Amino acid sequence: MTVSQKQRIVILGGGFGGVYTAIYLEKKLKYRADIEVVLVSKENYFVFQPMLAEVVSGSIGILDTVSPLRRLLPRTTLFIRDVEEINLEQKTVSLSPGFRPRQMILPYDHLVLALGTVTDFRGLPGLYEHAFPFKNLADAVALRNHLIHVLEEASIEPDPAMKKELLTFVIAGGGFSGVEVAAEMNDFLREVASRYRGLKREEIHVILLHSGARILERELAPDLGEYAQNILRKRGVDIRLKTRLRTASQNAAILQNGEVIPSKTVVSTVPSSPHPLIDTLTLPKERGKVSVDETLQVVGSTSVWALGDCALVPYPGADKFCPPTAQHATRQAELVAKNLLASIDNKPRQTFQFTGLGKMGSLGHRSAVAEIIWGIKLSGILAWFFWRTVYWWKLPGLDRKLRVGISWFIDLLLPADFVQLKLTEKNAIAQAHYEPGEMVFEQGDVGDCLYILVKGEVEILVTQDGEQKSVAHLREGEYFGEMALLKHQSRSASVRCVTPVELLMLRRGDFQSLISNLADLRTSMESVMEKRLLTDPQEP
Amino acid sequence: MTVSQKQRIVILGGGFGGVYTAIYLEKKLKYRADIEVVLVSKENYFVFQPMLAEVVSGSIGILDTVSPLRRLLPRTTLFIRDVEEINLEQKTVSLSPGFRPRQMILPYDHLVLALGTVTDFRGLPGLYEHAFPFKNLADAVALRNHLIHVLEEASIEPDPAMKKELLTFVIAGGGFSGVEVAAEMNDFLREVASRYRGLKREEIHVILLHSGARILERELAPDLGEYAQNILRKRGVDIRLKTRLRTASQNAAILQNGEVIPSKTVVSTVPSSPHPLIDTLTLPKERGKVSVDETLQVVGSTSVWALGDCALVPYPGADKFCPPTAQHATRQAELVAKNLLASIDNKPRQTFQFTGLGKMGSLGHRSAVAEIIWGIKLSGILAWFFWRTVYWWKLPGLDRKLRVGISWFIDLLLPADFVQLKLTEKNAIAQAHYEPGEMVFEQGDVGDCLYILVKGEVEILVTQDGEQKSVAHLREGEYFGEMALLKHQSRSASVRCVTPVELLMLRRGDFQSLISNLADLRTSMESVMEKRLLTDPQEP
Repeated sequence: MTVSQKQRIVILGGGFGGVYTAIYLEKKLKYRADIEVVLVSKENYFVFQPMLAEVVSGSIGILDTVSPLRRLLPRTTLFIRDVEEINLEQKTVSLSPGFRPRQMILPYDHLVLALGTVTDFRGLPGLYEHAFPFKNLADAVALRNHLIHVLEEASIEPDPAMKKELLTFVIAGGGFSGVEVAAEMNDFLREVASRYRGLKREEIHVILLHSGARILERELAPDLGEYAQNILRKRGVDIRLKTRLRTASQNAAILQNGEVIPSKTVVSTVPSSPHPLIDTLTLPKERGKVSVDETLQVVGSTSVWALGDCALVPYPGADKFCPPTAQHATRQAELVAKNLLASIDNKPRQTFQFTGLGKMGSLGHRSAVAEIIWGIKLSGILAWFFWRTVYWWKLPGLDRKLRVGISWFIDLLLPADFVQLKLTEKNAIAQAHYEPGEMVFEQGDVGDCLYILVKGEVEILVTQDGEQKSVAHLREGEYFGEMALLKHQSRSASVRCVTPVELLMLRRGDFQSLISNLADLRTSMESVMEKRLLTDPQEP
Repeated sequence: MTVSQKQRIVILGGGFGGVYTAIYLEKKLKYRADIEVVLVSKENYFVFQPMLAEVVSGSIGILDTVSPLRRLLPRTTLFIRDVEEINLEQKTVSLSPGFRPRQMILPYDHLVLALGTVTDFRGLPGLYEHAFPFKNLADAVALRNHLIHVLEEASIEPDPAMKKELLTFVIAGGGFSGVEVAAEMNDFLREVASRYRGLKREEIHVILLHSGARILERELAPDLGEYAQNILRKRGVDIRLKTRLRTASQNAAILQNGEVIPSKTVVSTVPSSPHPLIDTLTLPKERGKVSVDETLQVVGSTSVWALGDCALVPYPGADKFCPPTAQHATRQAELVAKNLLASIDNKPRQTFQFTGLGKMGSLGHRSAVAEIIWGIKLSGILAWFFWRTVYWWKLPGLDRKLRVGISWFIDLLLPADFVQLKLTEKNAIAQAHYEPGEMVFEQGDVGDCLYILVKGEVEILVTQDGEQKSVAHLREGEYFGEMALLKHQSRSASVRCVTPVELLMLRRGDFQSLISNLADLRTSMESVMEKRLLTDPQEP
């Protein structure tokens, strides 16, 4: 059997759905060389989502919740890139460029969609700029750092109104995610505030907004929801029911009823919408999710499968769909792995049978609520202990189990940590230096930024009919690369440095912001571009 | 005694010198209410520098080397801000703005300068843009993340030349810092590479450049330097002596002898220059450092003290100066604390007597070199054990001792971790949303950015003779705030939102990059500014 005869399974997504599909495939494929498994993930690690709220309070370390993918998946080929395009007809996936501005095209025989959802504030002015999302590890770290920054500033703020604004924290959404974040934030801020001269525990004001009549009303039975509500209120969380966040500004949370709550911290755990790539696919969809049959194959397709939060999976034996939880995603992953191999081997496929094992949520500081199978309900320290045990057991990899166990142990012994991990604040506009002869980019590359020549000279090279010729020289103060950005094309020429060169690089997003808002700049760029197009249609 | 009679000691700098001065002052001041101690630090934590190289390899956790300042200094008032100006005549220090664009002015009675040095690549084109500095925690985390990113890309790179470029790592500087970083990087990269399908240990190429004839020649006796050199070479580090780095480009390290080494990773541990604020002070200086007498008071001054790397401290009994090491800075800190109180109480001051306790450097993977007092020399695992014990002992705070101890223990048990901690990559140009009535900035605020109106309407307000009047309205596509940036002044007017407003914020540094390189943009901005100045001299 030659290499080219291998069948390639490409899995898109590094969350529970994608990673567990790969894990189960590795298990089943141990002795088969005819199938190659490829996983594409944005990050080189898997985040154990249920513990993310604990990262905010620091009761586990920043990296304890995450496992390197390569350790979980020794036999899978990993691409740590963004997925930019899926071509169902040609059976290829395009990945974002790495160090070089070139896309990577990945052909597949079988495609598994496990792209999940994204927290998307686009189209929500105010939230987009100022609300903290809470979805991935970067969000958790950014929120934690912001909380500590706010405490630092509040501790030296002479103006009482400003101090109050700094010490007010608003969380929108009374589902599991919002409740867990509110609980952990409240515990953390109150404990740490007592460490600051000039701050008091009582000055911390954490507000949880919920549109319904009771928190966790969709997730849990009424008595457990009440219990959770009482616990949080006793700890000082200000729960406001039947209230919605309308927007956020630089200085405040603005509610639907018009109330303005001065605050520098607005966290929103809603809305989460399907991954934008799903939108671009011509597959049967409902509510923005991909429709699959009960074997998890996409309806009407033989080579595409979908699972997890981006798929609409029929709930076994009922006229509804599976909820977007980790327990469902991991069971779906096992079935996708099984059915994929069955369909490759022309064997019969199985249907999805898992109906759920209960629900639980942490309330911070040794308290939780849980609804287990057969109607068993738990609350308080017992539920908390159960919560920790279950999730600890589910953590993939022995090393993470050890690390999290030790962190929990340390957390019992030591007071909360509150280091604000400041990472470099560089200027927004990147700079680059090139030596004579080096290429800035080459014809055909992806056009991802505009270059402004600060110093030196570059030469524009065009390859036509296999021959490369120099068509222009640019010098200090001139710019290049705007054409690919304005016209959404790849580079139409190459650029080589003649002398040592210093460049400013304005990335696509920033370029577009500026150009669409500064009329003068747009006019001047467009006139330069037109001139270039007239003198030589091949210039970049 | 009233509050205003308190004497205020202001310490600038959160490194060994500044933090230990505050620690010793707290010890001595336990029962004195007449003296207030203030520490200004960029970060809210103290970094234990000697262990920074271990953060790169992950043998200790990212936050293990750092201690929250508030835990070390419960009785000191902390300002987590940058120092922007020191006014020796008025005895004040100006701090950078917090959430609001206003400077904070801090008066002092006694000033302690412990500002250390900075790794400064400005004026070194190429290094400024592309070399990784290695000085603080953010540098270590950034370098670690970059190394993992490079491995990820190398593992899927089809072009062998590009793969080789990705797997070549250049470190400049054969002092302790460079040697430790090279050793840790080499160990880490080789161990982790074996985890990647498509990478081999042997493909990792770590190059250490040193201008002298032997690494660590200024720091250690010849035999220990030789020993270190042999150990590193045996582990595969390519040590190139009598070689200097000239510059770096997007794709390569360029040596003084003209050699070009294709690489995406150039680390430079040189040069470190005195903190830029020291330059602005009219104090006696030599080699850019502040001259102090042997009691550590600045020569010719009665209220200013200096220590650590920003000061030139006479070496006891010899015509030379103390080296810039942690052991000297902490001893100097103890003496500054003592002498400061002695001079407040009009008692005699003591002179600096500490001459050093030996030197040591880690070589990664259970190996080190050390020169202790009385000419005792150690190398190998014994030195490594000694190194760990000493630094562990010196770690401030029991909690860090415990955390580092546990991390070292885990490191013995578990394989190296290689999670690439990706933090949000937002667009460079920040966006902000305001509701009607909110102020964007107020007259007199610090001018730190240009605002471009994407949506909505703002009103310009000028306060003259105590009266506020509206002088203009601006709409979509217009911008404001350029005047304070172009003329380096504070805001000459206030801006209030009339409708919901969306803004782009271009920060000072980015604004200046663009304006000084895009001639058209500059011309258009200047003409708008002139028009505004003509119609109303108070416009922002």
